[in-house]
Amino acid sequence: MPVINLNDSALREMMPGFNGHLVHTEGMTFVEWHVTAGALLPEHSHPHEQVTAVQEGEFEMTIDGSKNQLTPGSVAVIPSNVLHSGRAVTDCTIIDVFQPVREDYR
Amino acid sequence: MPVINLNDSALREMMPGFNGHLVHTEGMTFVEWHVTAGALLPEHSHPHEQVTAVQEGEFEMTIDGSKNQLTPGSVAVIPSNVLHSGRAVTDCTIIDVFQPVREDYR
Repeated sequence: MPVINLNDSALREMMPGFNGHLVHTEGMTFVEWHVTAGALLPEHSHPHEQVTAVQEGEFEMTIDGSKNQLTPGSVAVIPSNVLHSGRAVTDCTIIDVFQPVREDYR
Repeated sequence: MPVINLNDSALREMMPGFNGHLVHTEGMTFVEWHVTAGALLPEHSHPHEQVTAVQEGEFEMTIDGSKNQLTPGSVAVIPSNVLHSGRAVTDCTIIDVFQPVREDYR
């Protein structure tokens, strides 16, 4: 820090098909995910607020029971403790930002 | 909310050459900047913590007196109240995330 190159940091498979470059700051966790087509994000929630921004590909995300097709330019805002799940329709590159820090991702 | 498409939201010129799509959440401000080559970010600081992730192009950023050439894959972490400035070497697309919310950007 304060500047890193994601390509120099290890890609961590946090869930099957979800490989991420993770950066933890004082109050946020920033992740660039490389997601394999067909990968499933099981329904879950967490106290962290989340912003999901699709950069490449298509990701189907269900938030609080509402299904959305996310494509480049889509930004999903997931409030604290709201249930969400997802499925990679194609290979995707996705940026997630959480606040506060995802201690479970360290 | 909870899902928007940035291309449907207005591009706001917050500083000369810095045109952004802004999304404010409960605790964060997410910005996708389209920056014109040569645009200057004057030295400043703010209490918000900031993550800067260059998606396209090259941006020279000086953080706490240290100069960095940011290219795709570069992520800069700017702690609260740290002085920073910058210059777009080329046209750039940059994601910035601030916490807490940038009330001055509403």
